[in-house]
Amino acid sequence: MTKPKVVILGGGFAGIECAKTFKRKNVDVLLIDRQNHHLFQPLLYQVASAGLAAPEIAHPIRSIFSGQDNVKVLMDEVTGIDLAGKAIETENGPIAYDYLVIGLGVKTGYFGNDGWKKHARGLKSLDDAMAIRRDLLLAFERAESCEDPVERERLMTVGVIGGGPTGVELAGSFAELASHVLVRDFKHIDTNEAKIFLIEAAPRLLTMYDEDLSNYTKEALEGMGVTVKTGSPVKEIREGEIELADETLQVGNVVWAAGVEAPPFTKTLGIEVDRGGRIMVETDLSIPDHPEVFVAGDLAHCVDHAGVRVPGLSPAAMQMGKHSAKVIIDEIEGRNSKNYPVRRQFTYFDKGSMATIGRSHAVAESMGLKFKGYIAWLMWLFVHLMFLVGFKNRLAVLSQWFYAYVRYRRGARIITGMQWIRK
Amino acid sequence: MTKPKVVILGGGFAGIECAKTFKRKNVDVLLIDRQNHHLFQPLLYQVASAGLAAPEIAHPIRSIFSGQDNVKVLMDEVTGIDLAGKAIETENGPIAYDYLVIGLGVKTGYFGNDGWKKHARGLKSLDDAMAIRRDLLLAFERAESCEDPVERERLMTVGVIGGGPTGVELAGSFAELASHVLVRDFKHIDTNEAKIFLIEAAPRLLTMYDEDLSNYTKEALEGMGVTVKTGSPVKEIREGEIELADETLQVGNVVWAAGVEAPPFTKTLGIEVDRGGRIMVETDLSIPDHPEVFVAGDLAHCVDHAGVRVPGLSPAAMQMGKHSAKVIIDEIEGRNSKNYPVRRQFTYFDKGSMATIGRSHAVAESMGLKFKGYIAWLMWLFVHLMFLVGFKNRLAVLSQWFYAYVRYRRGARIITGMQWIRK
Repeated sequence: MTKPKVVILGGGFAGIECAKTFKRKNVDVLLIDRQNHHLFQPLLYQVASAGLAAPEIAHPIRSIFSGQDNVKVLMDEVTGIDLAGKAIETENGPIAYDYLVIGLGVKTGYFGNDGWKKHARGLKSLDDAMAIRRDLLLAFERAESCEDPVERERLMTVGVIGGGPTGVELAGSFAELASHVLVRDFKHIDTNEAKIFLIEAAPRLLTMYDEDLSNYTKEALEGMGVTVKTGSPVKEIREGEIELADETLQVGNVVWAAGVEAPPFTKTLGIEVDRGGRIMVETDLSIPDHPEVFVAGDLAHCVDHAGVRVPGLSPAAMQMGKHSAKVIIDEIEGRNSKNYPVRRQFTYFDKGSMATIGRSHAVAESMGLKFKGYIAWLMWLFVHLMFLVGFKNRLAVLSQWFYAYVRYRRGARIITGMQWIRK
Repeated sequence: MTKPKVVILGGGFAGIECAKTFKRKNVDVLLIDRQNHHLFQPLLYQVASAGLAAPEIAHPIRSIFSGQDNVKVLMDEVTGIDLAGKAIETENGPIAYDYLVIGLGVKTGYFGNDGWKKHARGLKSLDDAMAIRRDLLLAFERAESCEDPVERERLMTVGVIGGGPTGVELAGSFAELASHVLVRDFKHIDTNEAKIFLIEAAPRLLTMYDEDLSNYTKEALEGMGVTVKTGSPVKEIREGEIELADETLQVGNVVWAAGVEAPPFTKTLGIEVDRGGRIMVETDLSIPDHPEVFVAGDLAHCVDHAGVRVPGLSPAAMQMGKHSAKVIIDEIEGRNSKNYPVRRQFTYFDKGSMATIGRSHAVAESMGLKFKGYIAWLMWLFVHLMFLVGFKNRLAVLSQWFYAYVRYRRGARIITGMQWIRK
């Protein structure tokens, strides 16, 4: 008997966790991603703000599964899904599946204003992050040799749109870059005069957190020199300009952290999607009429077994990836064959969430408790440092390079710049 | 009295060392480079072979001089030099100088076969290195899902052209990447079957070293699985093919490490250049009839005071940069005013040179002594580790990122990908 074939689309948190769950199970797993690396998205803002090198937050997907024989990895672009024919379409032809887990995630969305895209870069990939870093650093270089004070001020102004965790982290990180790092490098301009605007349409930052934490975040950012504009929806973005209701900001760079949306293919599947294009899933994470197809991660619009709308966070994606795999394993191992369709139901376990504002400032909510300030920052640091250590499998090495030499591990085998060669 | 203005072109080893030598001297130094970072070229092959992340071997030029008040740094492209008018031309207008030090280095050269450029990438910049890494890793990805055995073999074949230190280091490093690193990642292909060709026109590798070391290098590379073809000039390079005298190799990637040449502007200056476009300098490193203009580093064709032809190595570039500065300082401080033109003469101090072949193999020559094997590799490791430590100013840190947080240093503020936005 041939083994059931599970195809997983996407090597993000959902896809990786899903594939791992099949360890030692009697299935053939094929994990497909258009990149060769898994990305630790929570630290992507650090690459954009020159705090981390790109390879430090990315890990080759193949390497994650080098010890798991039943997982094959394929670097390819998925162009469509044939639900009726149980096959996905790729640039190199169709691939059949018995079970499909869609963990493709979301992309930067501009609420229909696609013209804003070329003036306001989103932050979803390493290439995005490196482009933001390049453009930001270049603006300061140009300011340094600019004799026109108005243009110089514009070059030293950054607009961050969106007051969620990513926007808060970017704004705080840019402020620190300007006032603590670049300030020593430039002699003509004073980078302390750099202006960072954080623009949010809602009346407060971090709307998913308690209002007390939102207020704390605003004060902490302002203390770092960030100008926070809440209740301030963007009307228009043009080259070098952000138009708000009451004023127009002259900016050297704009970063968009205000919205995400599903990739357009979800609307072509003939299944129900929400307004953002996310796929509506059952409480077992499968899609209606296709019990062999699951959606896990940010692309799923999921109200879980307890009636909770599952948020677009990495722990949720990991839990959904794992759950999808477990339902499939139940079925393959015959545990569901008699009483199907009463499948294992998904219940989101909310570990809490955290956002860092800058050095020594963060906010966190967990298990009904709120944290802010230094203690929250230490929590954030611990969680992310533990991750980085685990990610790179090293604790105390003289340098990544020395380690690479001694142990034959290479942290930098990461493919970036794909958009340039895919033209 | 206004201070003398020294303009230094290029932030490589020559330019950086030159600018540093002016510390606490009564001059205004302007250092111009088209990149924002100084690059540790001797480890560039490690980025190309995925051993190091780009920011690990690059350092912001501004940061190097943040503590030296008389050095200004400008990121700009030099478009010409007006020797008679004592000014350089940049994309943003002319800049006058009293003294000029040209430390621009050389670029990849194809011996007039410029059509080869698009099939055989050179290795001079971070962008080159990251592109080589990307193309190499992509070829293995394609091989993994390729059903045609002939095409698969081609994809897994790399041609390195040029048997000097860079070619030797690249070939050894590619062989290790395939046989020790990637071998665990891929399940369909066996990357041990990857073919690495090292192609050299001369009868032996590393012609500048003793023949014994050349032979050792060839044997060590062959032991690592590299096919060394000496006495084998390249006749033609086409897409996916290298044509030699006796055979044509089908290759997935070609890296060119066979030659460098001066940028074309040297031929427009109206001064004497050698066949490769290098500028002929006097024994004080100035150019004939222009005692205020110096050339330091790889762009100088220099026979030193002792009659030695100065090689294109980083220690030589550093010595030349320092010497140029000292001659200028002598003159500014009046030490040469009476007996000019008897200036300080340049004598190259040969510390020796080394090339690494792979893990535990290297060759070195220093002070008339020859080293090979493990001892030479330890020497190489020590020299380069010391550099990396000094470069990043860190010794025992949990990770570069933790350090960045605690000390406000950011290793990754490196602008790359310039060619994409300069179209």
